[in-house]
Amino acid sequence: MTPMIHILNGPNLNLLGRRQPEIYGRETLDDVAAACAAIGAEAGLETRLLQSNWEGQIVDWIHEARESAAGIIINPAALTHTSVAVLDALNTFEGPVIEVHISQVHKREAFRHHSYVSHRADAVMAGFGVHGYVLAMRHMAHLLG
Amino acid sequence: MTPMIHILNGPNLNLLGRRQPEIYGRETLDDVAAACAAIGAEAGLETRLLQSNWEGQIVDWIHEARESAAGIIINPAALTHTSVAVLDALNTFEGPVIEVHISQVHKREAFRHHSYVSHRADAVMAGFGVHGYVLAMRHMAHLLG
Amino acid sequence: MTPMIHILNGPNLNLLGRRQPEIYGRETLDDVAAACAAIGAEAGLETRLLQSNWEGQIVDWIHEARESAAGIIINPAALTHTSVAVLDALNTFEGPVIEVHISQVHKREAFRHHSYVSHRADAVMAGFGVHGYVLAMRHMAHLLG
Amino acid sequence: MTPMIHILNGPNLNLLGRRQPEIYGRETLDDVAAACAAIGAEAGLETRLLQSNWEGQIVDWIHEARESAAGIIINPAALTHTSVAVLDALNTFEGPVIEVHISQVHKREAFRHHSYVSHRADAVMAGFGVHGYVLAMRHMAHLLG
Amino acid sequence: MTPMIHILNGPNLNLLGRRQPEIYGRETLDDVAAACAAIGAEAGLETRLLQSNWEGQIVDWIHEARESAAGIIINPAALTHTSVAVLDALNTFEGPVIEVHISQVHKREAFRHHSYVSHRADAVMAGFGVHGYVLAMRHMAHLLG
Amino acid sequence: MTPMIHILNGPNLNLLGRRQPEIYGRETLDDVAAACAAIGAEAGLETRLLQSNWEGQIVDWIHEARESAAGIIINPAALTHTSVAVLDALNTFEGPVIEVHISQVHKREAFRHHSYVSHRADAVMAGFGVHGYVLAMRHMAHLLG
Amino acid sequence: MTPMIHILNGPNLNLLGRRQPEIYGRETLDDVAAACAAIGAEAGLETRLLQSNWEGQIVDWIHEARESAAGIIINPAALTHTSVAVLDALNTFEGPVIEVHISQVHKREAFRHHSYVSHRADAVMAGFGVHGYVLAMRHMAHLLG
Amino acid sequence: MTPMIHILNGPNLNLLGRRQPEIYGRETLDDVAAACAAIGAEAGLETRLLQSNWEGQIVDWIHEARESAAGIIINPAALTHTSVAVLDALNTFEGPVIEVHISQVHKREAFRHHSYVSHRADAVMAGFGVHGYVLAMRHMAHLLG
Amino acid sequence: MTPMIHILNGPNLNLLGRRQPEIYGRETLDDVAAACAAIGAEAGLETRLLQSNWEGQIVDWIHEARESAAGIIINPAALTHTSVAVLDALNTFEGPVIEVHISQVHKREAFRHHSYVSHRADAVMAGFGVHGYVLAMRHMAHLLG
Amino acid sequence: MTPMIHILNGPNLNLLGRRQPEIYGRETLDDVAAACAAIGAEAGLETRLLQSNWEGQIVDWIHEARESAAGIIINPAALTHTSVAVLDALNTFEGPVIEVHISQVHKREAFRHHSYVSHRADAVMAGFGVHGYVLAMRHMAHLLG
Amino acid sequence: MTPMIHILNGPNLNLLGRRQPEIYGRETLDDVAAACAAIGAEAGLETRLLQSNWEGQIVDWIHEARESAAGIIINPAALTHTSVAVLDALNTFEGPVIEVHISQVHKREAFRHHSYVSHRADAVMAGFGVHGYVLAMRHMAHLLG
Amino acid sequence: MTPMIHILNGPNLNLLGRRQPEIYGRETLDDVAAACAAIGAEAGLETRLLQSNWEGQIVDWIHEARESAAGIIINPAALTHTSVAVLDALNTFEGPVIEVHISQVHKREAFRHHSYVSHRADAVMAGFGVHGYVLAMRHMAHLLG
Repeated sequence: MTPMIHILNGPNLNLLGRRQPEIYGRETLDDVAAACAAIGAEAGLETRLLQSNWEGQIVDWIHEARESAAGIIINPAALTHTSVAVLDALNTFEGPVIEVHISQVHKREAFRHHSYVSHRADAVMAGFGVHGYVLAMRHMAHLLG
Repeated sequence: MTPMIHILNGPNLNLLGRRQPEIYGRETLDDVAAACAAIGAEAGLETRLLQSNWEGQIVDWIHEARESAAGIIINPAALTHTSVAVLDALNTFEGPVIEVHISQVHKREAFRHHSYVSHRADAVMAGFGVHGYVLAMRHMAHLLG
Repeated sequence: MTPMIHILNGPNLNLLGRRQPEIYGRETLDDVAAACAAIGAEAGLETRLLQSNWEGQIVDWIHEARESAAGIIINPAALTHTSVAVLDALNTFEGPVIEVHISQVHKREAFRHHSYVSHRADAVMAGFGVHGYVLAMRHMAHLLG
Repeated sequence: MTPMIHILNGPNLNLLGRRQPEIYGRETLDDVAAACAAIGAEAGLETRLLQSNWEGQIVDWIHEARESAAGIIINPAALTHTSVAVLDALNTFEGPVIEVHISQVHKREAFRHHSYVSHRADAVMAGFGVHGYVLAMRHMAHLLG
Repeated sequence: MTPMIHILNGPNLNLLGRRQPEIYGRETLDDVAAACAAIGAEAGLETRLLQSNWEGQIVDWIHEARESAAGIIINPAALTHTSVAVLDALNTFEGPVIEVHISQVHKREAFRHHSYVSHRADAVMAGFGVHGYVLAMRHMAHLLG
Repeated sequence: MTPMIHILNGPNLNLLGRRQPEIYGRETLDDVAAACAAIGAEAGLETRLLQSNWEGQIVDWIHEARESAAGIIINPAALTHTSVAVLDALNTFEGPVIEVHISQVHKREAFRHHSYVSHRADAVMAGFGVHGYVLAMRHMAHLLG
Repeated sequence: MTPMIHILNGPNLNLLGRRQPEIYGRETLDDVAAACAAIGAEAGLETRLLQSNWEGQIVDWIHEARESAAGIIINPAALTHTSVAVLDALNTFEGPVIEVHISQVHKREAFRHHSYVSHRADAVMAGFGVHGYVLAMRHMAHLLG
Repeated sequence: MTPMIHILNGPNLNLLGRRQPEIYGRETLDDVAAACAAIGAEAGLETRLLQSNWEGQIVDWIHEARESAAGIIINPAALTHTSVAVLDALNTFEGPVIEVHISQVHKREAFRHHSYVSHRADAVMAGFGVHGYVLAMRHMAHLLG
Repeated sequence: MTPMIHILNGPNLNLLGRRQPEIYGRETLDDVAAACAAIGAEAGLETRLLQSNWEGQIVDWIHEARESAAGIIINPAALTHTSVAVLDALNTFEGPVIEVHISQVHKREAFRHHSYVSHRADAVMAGFGVHGYVLAMRHMAHLLG
Repeated sequence: MTPMIHILNGPNLNLLGRRQPEIYGRETLDDVAAACAAIGAEAGLETRLLQSNWEGQIVDWIHEARESAAGIIINPAALTHTSVAVLDALNTFEGPVIEVHISQVHKREAFRHHSYVSHRADAVMAGFGVHGYVLAMRHMAHLLG
Repeated sequence: MTPMIHILNGPNLNLLGRRQPEIYGRETLDDVAAACAAIGAEAGLETRLLQSNWEGQIVDWIHEARESAAGIIINPAALTHTSVAVLDALNTFEGPVIEVHISQVHKREAFRHHSYVSHRADAVMAGFGVHGYVLAMRHMAHLLG
Repeated sequence: MTPMIHILNGPNLNLLGRRQPEIYGRETLDDVAAACAAIGAEAGLETRLLQSNWEGQIVDWIHEARESAAGIIINPAALTHTSVAVLDALNTFEGPVIEVHISQVHKREAFRHHSYVSHRADAVMAGFGVHGYVLAMRHMAHLLG
């Protein structure tokens, strides 16, 4: 069976490509999904990209990933800094977890420098733009290949 | 077209007027909605008052406001102190944002002295009781008039 | 009328008994519900056990408890450390509130040492395993008996 | 007898309207005085607007307010963050106290986020520009009316 | 041989029932000893309740418990917050240790929020009044039964 | 020549005896002056009691004390916590300095626990009510006698 | 019956007058006892001066004071900064408590700036040398006279 | 017109040369004024040296400097660490501001290491003795020459 | 001309592959150099991999990169947390800078959570093992391609 | 007269050699006493090794050492981190003081990193096992020889 | 013999005049050397200007200065904030030490506000641009003249 | 083969015996080397003493020690407090590491109280003067003998 990678996205990422394009570029989450799927296809990985503004939904999806996913790529967005619930959910997941931030969070406000998710993530990246998702997929392929 | 003001209310504000009336008074959110609508009518502003105990719902409503609102009045209640998601949603909104607290939060527990929302709000008020919403509406009229 | 005890459970507790059994044991929330009901039966208390990964749901349930519950036993799990909304909801409840943690949180990461819920809870316990729920029920019987 | 509202202004506010008009606008303290007087006239309140760069003077005026004022509107400016003397003086005053800041201080340097005056003020507002004084007058009318 | 539970009590608990009865109730340590003995009798556990205002005495008793006790219930009272010696003594004990506080310490002064003893205790409870000792005994029975 | 003791009083102490008599009693600064003068008369010390709400005035008076005073008794009131200028002025004075607080400041807000003046004062007292001035005078007599 | 004042002294004060006389003077605790007794005689107060290097002993003596003393003068010495047990014992005492320090602790190491005992003491003095005990006795006479 | 340099001096500097000459030397503010005037004369700059122990006076003088000065040399003394009012006044001044401290403040008490004035000053110097004023004048000449 | 990427490595990385292979794997810096060169060859980028245990050497190499490099990939190792000199050197470089850490530093000691280099880096990654260098090269190709 | 070295040991050290031998080894305090005596014999020093779980006892012994000891070797164990009383007692002793810790405390919990005793000790060692006492004796011989 | 002044410069200052000229101006270290030499010539002082990106080199040069220099002017650049080694080296030097920063460091990132070198420097200046070196030379002439 | 002990010395220790002899004594590093060699000879250990002011050199020497040394005695001097690179190098060494400080660092400035090297060192000593090296050698003999 083809291993599945879940690509989970937190609050406000539904607006990707439609707000502040000079910062975040013009690519949308759909473009991200397509690019990840393409690399997955190459590497023998299925992908499923999801987004929610609701913390509870993200937790539920991580629980689902326990059943169906070989790895999780997560951009927790605002929940990075505030959600122990997401951390605890990821703590119940056994495959690799990669944390992705589009912007370089360490150059932004101080409260964005701490990540609860980093207490669990196997790898973390920030500042690679939407290209970061692609690199995270390549790393999943490297780990699971 | 008449400009619309969204008046968003966070967790537990559905109980307004029904709990601790000696502190919060006996006016309910419906009374607040009516008072704001009345001032709006005077000032040529439509109003839409919403309340939720769910952070994700508040974020979704702020996204809707991007399409339909000229300004946001928000009483984030408990989310004031804990929600980067609400802050990030407001960061995508371009009109004026007024943050309202019914009680004077600076006289309460220390954790209530910091507001994530204040990183974005154009103006902040606390301790004016439910009359604060009315004053916020007057300020919206002043800004958008 | 038989007084009702609401037993509220926060994020990830739906997995109880299914993850890390060497730590949390093999008892599930259903087992907990049954054990609490048994003690309730003895003590003349009805019980209602609920679980959600969604903070907003927990807040809504606490509001319901204002109408129907004589006491609340709550294991806020991850929300312990991050939710002012749950605290504020509990602040509107007038009966006894007991906060239960399955593990001994003071031996875990520093961010687990602070509880917003403890600002309101009448009693707090940690490290008693799922047996803690039973003890909390006995204390409710002691208080309300 | 018509109740009197004292409107006290701290250091550097004498320059209002003459420095950084792009931030503070072109209205002067005289304009503020006139606008407040106008609302007062409507609402049956006398007003007395004073300004000083000297902390001792502000304290003395608060003592005078104990004799003659029904309420105090105060923009303590720089003294907000440094003057326990002003706080202690306000602690001897029994009517309502409203703290006004023209700019949104929570978006400025960290030392501007703490206010000694907020330990006493019944209500606080920041970021409403000089229009804040008008709103504070309306609130006085609401409270004393 | 019947397993023995040592119930150790720190400074000022000799006054239990005689000071501030509105807070601590009218039950004395003798009443606590009797109640614990009763549960012990039911559960096949002997009990030995001791109290001292002297930290050195508490340490000595913990050393004795190494020889003769199957479990320790300890209410370290003031020593909770100040005694590394008690912690280190408990670190040499191998059976279960339950930490009991009569009042809900997390609602009191900040210096009462940290417990050295919690670095070792298997379980901690606070705010259950003197009934907490009874619940701790029940938990000992549960663990050792 | 009879040695002179300057008794300096900071902001708001002019209201002594007229505000919150249940806390501060009904004695005024004039009563304090008389009581100090009486003890001074016994002990061969002249006294000069002064009060100002203006930090600059207090500094000027300390400079005068360099010429004419054998010792300083100072109740810096609010300036205790905020004035390096008063501390630096006292650092230029060579006789004994006694710092007096009417209330027990260590039981009040945290910002009242630090005193700049204590960096220089030879002795400090708090919570003795206006009787503290009398005791301070007795100590001056003891030191200079 | 003549009211009794207990004068309690903490660790190392038995060496008073015998160590570092250039700092602490040459008066011993016996001299202090005599001076206090003399003032007591004048004022109709009995005195009992005690010293111990053992925290448990100080706690026991405070318990005794609950039976026999009208007021407590305490120089907790090193225990000032480390003993919650002494604080809690004093919290059970209902008469006036005066905290005395021979040296001006606020000019010494930072850890000497915080006093647990000050959470309870009605009045605190530091830096008056052994004369401080005499002044404390005078204040007791003033309060109880 | 000859550009004017205002040389403003804060609390206690009127005593320069008369206190602790082993530290501060024997030169007075008059000597400083003369030396600055001499360099000014060379460099085509007028000078005006002022001193006050009153923060309000310093603020007023900075406002005057807005009209008449090309640059400000300021030794805020104790106000360095406590006055936001002086900072805010300097923020309204557009010419160069040089902050001078006679002693090397970074080797003194910790509270002297932070300067509000440094948030605005273009250049800061400490530890150059009264010669620092002369160097500051030379820098003004360099900047305005 | 083919753009050049400098790949700079800080202290102790010369031991890569030879120490703790269970953590760091068995690949050496030479293997890293080869893998980066291979991707560079594909992408039209030259690479130059350097390592030093000497901070000064790293600074010198960054200065050289100002002349000859289009981008810098840097694994500052221990210097991440301690070197402002490396940060300042990177601040003078105008091309893209990617910061790479082999291990997931946010799960290690607290002092490893802060990076001076992140004040400048355009992108940061941690926990990707030596594969991280490869991904960084791919990102350089993406940026400069 | 042969100079005497007092070797004082704090709480729980009576268990040395009997608990966690894999960490602390199998040597008891008696073995330590014998080894120290042996070196003392060589070096012309008498030794007296004492242990108590009671802080007051340690203070008393330090007072005795003022009369009879030329130097103190102290392993304060838990009191290291909590006892100002022991520090103050040592402050009255004039000979050399060596602080010994068997384990390397800086690798243990953060609260073990601060030592009150180190404010006085002339030399400190940690992590040398029981051999540390022997080295401390050699240093005493070196200092007093 | 003509006294020698060593002018030491830390990391990245070799780039002076070649990077960010809008901030640092277009003068190079060679220009600085020439200007200092010129003033030295006037004042009877020889000068030797050195720069290194290597901390060890700066330490070695300070050791050399012990033999040959009458005073040290040092711009430690990045080492200001991170090098105890430079501080310790300066602590072995007996002549005057002047610390120079070209930019006004107190207006930059928080980590630039602390200087290890200021623990030793007799005088510190920041924000005078390269003219600061000239003023430092004048001060050396003033001190050594 | 005779086991080798490397004795590494950080910045400024080359000046040992030549600066502040009243503190550090008149023994030089050569004397230390001789004394250590003498004990080594007795104990069957070779010794190699090295010193550098350059952090990179110390790191390189630790790498060499991986090949040739059985144990490391290190006095990191200033690098103690600032060098993660030295810590990381020591983390790759498998034999015993003893950290030596000549002075009692815990009595000096606060920044000297933290040691990165102590995160790895098996044993730490401070305040034994140069005799500390001799004791460290004896401990090496004890461990490796």
